[in-house]
Amino acid sequence: MPFRHRLRVRYHECDAQGVVFNAHYLTYCDIAITEMWRGLCGSYDKLIERGVDHVVAESTLRFRAPARFDDEVDIDVALLRLGTTSMDVGFAIRRDGAVLTEVRSRYVFVDPQTLKKKPPPDEIRLLLEPLAAS
Amino acid sequence: MPFRHRLRVRYHECDAQGVVFNAHYLTYCDIAITEMWRGLCGSYDKLIERGVDHVVAESTLRFRAPARFDDEVDIDVALLRLGTTSMDVGFAIRRDGAVLTEVRSRYVFVDPQTLKKKPPPDEIRLLLEPLAAS
Amino acid sequence: MPFRHRLRVRYHECDAQGVVFNAHYLTYCDIAITEMWRGLCGSYDKLIERGVDHVVAESTLRFRAPARFDDEVDIDVALLRLGTTSMDVGFAIRRDGAVLTEVRSRYVFVDPQTLKKKPPPDEIRLLLEPLAAS
Amino acid sequence: MPFRHRLRVRYHECDAQGVVFNAHYLTYCDIAITEMWRGLCGSYDKLIERGVDHVVAESTLRFRAPARFDDEVDIDVALLRLGTTSMDVGFAIRRDGAVLTEVRSRYVFVDPQTLKKKPPPDEIRLLLEPLAAS
Repeated sequence: MPFRHRLRVRYHECDAQGVVFNAHYLTYCDIAITEMWRGLCGSYDKLIERGVDHVVAESTLRFRAPARFDDEVDIDVALLRLGTTSMDVGFAIRRDGAVLTEVRSRYVFVDPQTLKKKPPPDEIRLLLEPLAAS
Repeated sequence: MPFRHRLRVRYHECDAQGVVFNAHYLTYCDIAITEMWRGLCGSYDKLIERGVDHVVAESTLRFRAPARFDDEVDIDVALLRLGTTSMDVGFAIRRDGAVLTEVRSRYVFVDPQTLKKKPPPDEIRLLLEPLAAS
Repeated sequence: MPFRHRLRVRYHECDAQGVVFNAHYLTYCDIAITEMWRGLCGSYDKLIERGVDHVVAESTLRFRAPARFDDEVDIDVALLRLGTTSMDVGFAIRRDGAVLTEVRSRYVFVDPQTLKKKPPPDEIRLLLEPLAAS
Repeated sequence: MPFRHRLRVRYHECDAQGVVFNAHYLTYCDIAITEMWRGLCGSYDKLIERGVDHVVAESTLRFRAPARFDDEVDIDVALLRLGTTSMDVGFAIRRDGAVLTEVRSRYVFVDPQTLKKKPPPDEIRLLLEPLAAS
């Protein structure tokens, strides 16, 4: 079952065409995954305290329809694949249910100090499993 | 032959890890394509005056190595495919020649007023052809 | 009595020093005043539908202490002065009550089409009065 | 004599009104002071290597006219006052000579590690003096 975070489009995120500038959708995904960790283990900082961080290795975005100033959008976060040292996460950014942008990102788990690849501890794997897309 | 634009990483584009926040690479691509149009036809506004605009339909980013504050990076822009109403553009963001991030984006040509799909005029096609990746 | 809006500091708003980059405090004020209009008349767009918009003519910011990633901050918005065609608005950005940044901005009311100075309609003045700092 | 840095307004810096969003002017000042240090001592990082950093304590912005997408603007940086542990810096953001935005900021010199107030070394003071407004 996906995790859902709602946010409101801010004025400065919209460009001269009156729609959200494309780069901000990656920011929205970053906000949503931070909120996901808050839901799973208290906060993103608490994830790091458990000895693991993640960096984005790859992202694919499909822009279907634009979000506009003052829209409330929902960001659904689903775990698509949980590998040994990485996970694939799907994001659907929706307004009134309709998907505006789809994003799929590969996160690599790393040591917070060295930033070297590292498997997440089992307790983190267990927290993630309920988010797996069925 | 690709078009090249150089820019310097700004302080506020770097996050608490000291590296460029991932969303900004899409902004860098947007800056580079604006500069590409300046090189091809005078400016992005001049493209629109010729009756065509473009919107990004899809982007894939591969993050290989981070750019850091004050780095000078080159953005190489190559035309990968020129279709009837869309084009695929490849971006390579490099520092001292080494590729940091690769981006491939599909741009759909649209009418500037209606934002409906529309083939670009022949004069624009002719301007783009020299940028085709061989 | 001031209007209060709470928001959470986003990761990308923090710079390499781990604190909110100074320009973002002006963005926070913009978000807060948008929420103030939502509280007063439904939305910022509804303000414009009533024939008036505003532009910022001047802002003074005093940075007392930094906000950090994941902090929840409250933004208090107080009406300091309501003139014929402008208003002075005070913002206090707080964490756990302590003021981090103080901002004072002068907003000039303008016609939404021409952007020329214009007094706000009386109904808007009446909505603003309860926010006056006593 | 002021230090001058030229930059071009980026598309995503403009809001739905087609003009630079107000917060970005503070970013422009940050870019200009980084370039000023490049001119004075090689880079901002080299300033820090000499044992001193600075944080902004206060900024006042006067918005006279908007900058727009693709404008080239000049940012003039002048040293208005050099105190024992702080300096007041004036910025004039111009297009074709006409001032669009004026900013005055107080920078406090701090130790890069402790972030505690600290006078800059004499060699830095000597570098700054030619920028003093006469």
